[in-house]
Amino acid sequence: MTRHPPRSTLSSSSAASDVYKRQAELFFEPSTRTMCSFEAAMLRLGGQVIRLNDMANTSTKKGETLTDTVATLLAYCDACVIRHPEKGAVQRAADSASKPVINAGDGVGEHPTQALLDVFTMRQELSLSLDTDSVIVTIVGDLKHGRTVHSLVKLLALHKGIKLQYVAPESLKLPSEIVDWLTERHPELDQQEFTELTPEIVAGSDVIYVTRVQKERFESEEEYAKVQGSYTINNATMGVAKEKMVVMHPLPRVGEIKEEFDSDPRAAYFRQMEYGMYMRMAILDAVLL
Amino acid sequence: MTRHPPRSTLSSSSAASDVYKRQAELFFEPSTRTMCSFEAAMLRLGGQVIRLNDMANTSTKKGETLTDTVATLLAYCDACVIRHPEKGAVQRAADSASKPVINAGDGVGEHPTQALLDVFTMRQELSLSLDTDSVIVTIVGDLKHGRTVHSLVKLLALHKGIKLQYVAPESLKLPSEIVDWLTERHPELDQQEFTELTPEIVAGSDVIYVTRVQKERFESEEEYAKVQGSYTINNATMGVAKEKMVVMHPLPRVGEIKEEFDSDPRAAYFRQMEYGMYMRMAILDAVLL
Amino acid sequence: MTRHPPRSTLSSSSAASDVYKRQAELFFEPSTRTMCSFEAAMLRLGGQVIRLNDMANTSTKKGETLTDTVATLLAYCDACVIRHPEKGAVQRAADSASKPVINAGDGVGEHPTQALLDVFTMRQELSLSLDTDSVIVTIVGDLKHGRTVHSLVKLLALHKGIKLQYVAPESLKLPSEIVDWLTERHPELDQQEFTELTPEIVAGSDVIYVTRVQKERFESEEEYAKVQGSYTINNATMGVAKEKMVVMHPLPRVGEIKEEFDSDPRAAYFRQMEYGMYMRMAILDAVLL
Repeated sequence: MTRHPPRSTLSSSSAASDVYKRQAELFFEPSTRTMCSFEAAMLRLGGQVIRLNDMANTSTKKGETLTDTVATLLAYCDACVIRHPEKGAVQRAADSASKPVINAGDGVGEHPTQALLDVFTMRQELSLSLDTDSVIVTIVGDLKHGRTVHSLVKLLALHKGIKLQYVAPESLKLPSEIVDWLTERHPELDQQEFTELTPEIVAGSDVIYVTRVQKERFESEEEYAKVQGSYTINNATMGVAKEKMVVMHPLPRVGEIKEEFDSDPRAAYFRQMEYGMYMRMAILDAVLL
Repeated sequence: MTRHPPRSTLSSSSAASDVYKRQAELFFEPSTRTMCSFEAAMLRLGGQVIRLNDMANTSTKKGETLTDTVATLLAYCDACVIRHPEKGAVQRAADSASKPVINAGDGVGEHPTQALLDVFTMRQELSLSLDTDSVIVTIVGDLKHGRTVHSLVKLLALHKGIKLQYVAPESLKLPSEIVDWLTERHPELDQQEFTELTPEIVAGSDVIYVTRVQKERFESEEEYAKVQGSYTINNATMGVAKEKMVVMHPLPRVGEIKEEFDSDPRAAYFRQMEYGMYMRMAILDAVLL
Repeated sequence: MTRHPPRSTLSSSSAASDVYKRQAELFFEPSTRTMCSFEAAMLRLGGQVIRLNDMANTSTKKGETLTDTVATLLAYCDACVIRHPEKGAVQRAADSASKPVINAGDGVGEHPTQALLDVFTMRQELSLSLDTDSVIVTIVGDLKHGRTVHSLVKLLALHKGIKLQYVAPESLKLPSEIVDWLTERHPELDQQEFTELTPEIVAGSDVIYVTRVQKERFESEEEYAKVQGSYTINNATMGVAKEKMVVMHPLPRVGEIKEEFDSDPRAAYFRQMEYGMYMRMAILDAVLL
């Protein structure tokens, strides 16, 4: 869509005197890590931030379309970071936007900046090359609803050395359209599915990527209790793991990784979180500067 | 009211070392455009912002008066921007404040910074002079509750060239006290009222200023459906309009202007929004610097 | 707990280029004064702020522990200011944190930065020395739930000249464990308890420190009405007070101090609020710089 610029020269001349870059944040869902790390990233780069994170109480409530809200923020800012509960919504917003729009998670869709920081974490933490070595990445938990995982597997599949192992209860398996998408594009990719995190799987993994298993996704308390226990990472579980491997988690966790394991050198999830800020600095730098 | 300054010299000496100006934002009602454009304006000027926009969860809930809350923010900041649901509340807050207070909308009362940006938009976008040419401004929608309009007509009436046309359903007409106020102060002002946006009105207008018609204001679904349709701006409606005219809207819109019209050069509402940031920069500059 | 730093040099080298200090704010309870004054303090010092004040809508809702949330914010920021409804929660968060954590109020526990600003206010406003003169401080209101008072009395007790008078209804008395704690550590400290704010007490006080008496704390409307009246500060009540004394209040107030008294030179509560910003600048400077 073509929108016409201001008829006077006011806009461009004022823009020339605007030495700061501004990032708009539009969060329709709660977020601690993604929102705050984007904010810290922009502030570290010397930029400014305008945050809208209580979208239930804004123009959306008055019936405004996402496209109009994004157009508003991009009239005041240089880029817009969006989290939205609906798969595909961020892409639609980006399609009609005049400035960069960054997807910070869209429902069960994608979470591309998380995938980038996850792969960056593996590059920093492992002594193996994701391209020339054999690297076994085991992904555990709710693989059906976890958008983090949906983006991560697509990015990992671009690396020649990666072998993927999916560990999930039957009802929370990685959607078959994602497995098929990967198989079609990367016929050589080794993908295996499991329903239990066995000692053998733990022992063979270079990366164990744990995700939150939300109680409310299960049909019954019993099913939840049984499954959750089988996926728990603690000092005992990790006894059989390699000495040089990492445990990752996009966080927040709700018991999948016990705190006793936090001081283990292989516990990479807090460092992973910090890498997220650096990755988002790099993304903003690429997009804005 | 006289309040006594600190008894030591600490306050003034510290203030001397405070090189940043700070704007407090106190929003008792949701706002995307007004709040974010004030924020962007202050940040563009190199200033700082402290926002309180979730006032249901603050001291007000604990029973604090607006006067005390504003006194608090002005102890920490150099000016306070307030939106409040109650007509007259911002004026009362300003009366007891020691530093500048800016009205960002008070219930069905006024929205003066919006009126300033609206007139600025007309000055930038029209090739006509508001003072020496004849400029027909048609204002459409809910003129009863729209504070934007209440401030705009008062500001437009100061310009010799302006002729005002009000288009609203009977139940949402411009309050008679405002029409009378204008008539008394500006006996030469040409004001006409209509209930329908006819092709003749569209054809004669230099500005069509559209406002949101909120469903909940109507007595029945039927009344709403009938009226809303008659006020809709789309490519067909605008076929009869002048080539050099503008369509404005304070936004958000909920269907009054169809998106198909957004790419028409006469669609000024997104540019109007951007002018809002520049106008608020000018206001802050006048008030703070 | 030992957490391992990033395995690459990325973290430290990036940190070297991070010229700004960032303060994270984590407010689980609403706050106007404490939050905004910490924010203004950090901004005045040239720092940056990341605020999380709508904690009902964040990772906590997803079941994250306070420790994990604080670890997250400290991955992105240099210090974390926390208000939490649970006594002791901030201390526990501080115990496992790798960077400074500042208590901005924990339930009915402590509010140490308020105590510091309160004592600073007395130092600035009184011509008496808290150490070498005799200074009678009368504390009035709900002394049972008021964390402000719980921290203040401990700090005041360190000053040789202070004599404490507690005025509270029987059901809202200062907890006996606090009185005992003070008696044990400061056997020479003069503490007296009263249930009514009599003219004699007013006349003898160098400081009257008023706190909010919340209706909902009382067993009946009658008890509330009777007690609240007896504690009200107005021009009449203050007629018998010394000429050189101050009335303080942590604010917000809900009628305990009538607005007619605001213009009296002894009304120090608005200046006290401003001192709070300076005190928090000093605290941040000590902790961060």
